[in-house]
Amino acid sequence: MRNLTQDNITQAVIARLAETPDPRLKEIMTSLVQHLHAFARDVKLTEAEWLQGIEFLTRVGHKTDDKRQEFILLSETLGLSMLTVAMNNDKPAGCTEATVFGPFYVEGAPSFDLGEDVARGAAGEPCEVRGHVRGLAGEPVPGAEIHVWQADAEGKYDVQRTDVETHQARGVLHAARDGSYHFRTILAEPYPIPDDGPVGDMLRATRRHPWRPAHLHFMIKARGYETLITHVFRNGDSYLDSDAVFGVRQSLVADWVKQPDGKYLVEYDFVLNPGGEPR
Amino acid sequence: MRNLTQDNITQAVIARLAETPDPRLKEIMTSLVQHLHAFARDVKLTEAEWLQGIEFLTRVGHKTDDKRQEFILLSETLGLSMLTVAMNNDKPAGCTEATVFGPFYVEGAPSFDLGEDVARGAAGEPCEVRGHVRGLAGEPVPGAEIHVWQADAEGKYDVQRTDVETHQARGVLHAARDGSYHFRTILAEPYPIPDDGPVGDMLRATRRHPWRPAHLHFMIKARGYETLITHVFRNGDSYLDSDAVFGVRQSLVADWVKQPDGKYLVEYDFVLNPGGEPR
Repeated sequence: MRNLTQDNITQAVIARLAETPDPRLKEIMTSLVQHLHAFARDVKLTEAEWLQGIEFLTRVGHKTDDKRQEFILLSETLGLSMLTVAMNNDKPAGCTEATVFGPFYVEGAPSFDLGEDVARGAAGEPCEVRGHVRGLAGEPVPGAEIHVWQADAEGKYDVQRTDVETHQARGVLHAARDGSYHFRTILAEPYPIPDDGPVGDMLRATRRHPWRPAHLHFMIKARGYETLITHVFRNGDSYLDSDAVFGVRQSLVADWVKQPDGKYLVEYDFVLNPGGEPR
Repeated sequence: MRNLTQDNITQAVIARLAETPDPRLKEIMTSLVQHLHAFARDVKLTEAEWLQGIEFLTRVGHKTDDKRQEFILLSETLGLSMLTVAMNNDKPAGCTEATVFGPFYVEGAPSFDLGEDVARGAAGEPCEVRGHVRGLAGEPVPGAEIHVWQADAEGKYDVQRTDVETHQARGVLHAARDGSYHFRTILAEPYPIPDDGPVGDMLRATRRHPWRPAHLHFMIKARGYETLITHVFRNGDSYLDSDAVFGVRQSLVADWVKQPDGKYLVEYDFVLNPGGEPR
């Protein structure tokens, strides 16, 4: 295996994977090498461009820490996250659709009783969220574990704020016996994804805006149902048709209605896919 | 742009690149999105596998610092580096072939006069290296700037050693008026690429060895010639046919000959490509 050329190196690299014991890993690595090489060949990547790519990925790696996941931002802005979600969430009609997980979920968010305020001091206009968690046949899902997280009025999640030590605008609740849930929080607002790193540079170089339409994140888990990772988007948002991470589904758009007392109310019912594997 | 599916999301992401002012960047990003998505589709990447990929790249990023370039190791072990070299170094017959740059070149290596010892205390059997730097018509290239770097007898470059503060086994020399060069150093030995990081985990998971055949790195620069980045490999090495980074070219293999005084001698003549662009 000497004197490899651009015409035979791909097969040589794939041959080197022949002894991979895990067949799935072998399949993934083989396809990765084929597509990575096809990309380089298609654009006839120069050595200077290759080095720019190495430097870009290095910056992405160094920007990533326990509070900032620049690789997830990169995956989302390249549409890879939503493609992966779309390929793996082909649920029966009637189930709530999934969308991207995003980089701002954190383990260990506080638990709340139904009706409590998950905002815990985060800035924003007051809002109530309510609805039901049901299965596909309409059955209530009592005790369903509802994780919710969102940005504040300035478009920041608590983990992005240096002036916040505690969890804010995120929490875990459990649906009531009839499957209903309700909690207080703050109004969802559109916000730009963090663009002070290499992904932001990429967006600027391609003249893309970094904005996401206003949304609440939900992850809902219940025994006997597939875990649902999704958002509820706010109707009327001007970024619904140009979400920086390609995550909007019409079925997830709901009306945030201003009440006579000045508070907002959004109602959304989730329908879980029975029998799915928990994730 | 809502309700994107696995069948139309790729075009939607590409459409978002429409306003990219730099046509080359637009071409590269468009191809990257196509091939990245094609990879995910081909293997029907699961969400758990996607997360493993994010975590792997995060580890690669965090392993990378000013002395360790794990992204270059990844590129090299996936054959991307050698493919890029092969595509961009289609030199006229008779020119010395190029190979991978590697992650261990550093700026600011010390300068040496011809005949001096670049090892500066690095462990290894003594060795002399000599030859000529010429152009394609056989003309000498006086003053050609010769950068050389290599691993020591334990397979470590100076930048990998925590016990070495100075440059060892690397330096810059200039060819004499007749194009000749000679210097002392240590014997090149085979060594494993650094495999205590995520790239090493990938090699183990695919049952690949991390070894590179013994070699000296050269980068040769001269006005009016294309910069040459290459190795000289040691004939007889058992890894010449299974280089972990796919870099061996038969024309770069030379004999390291043990002399009566016990020292090794290798002779190699470099032929530069005239008129190429400096890099």
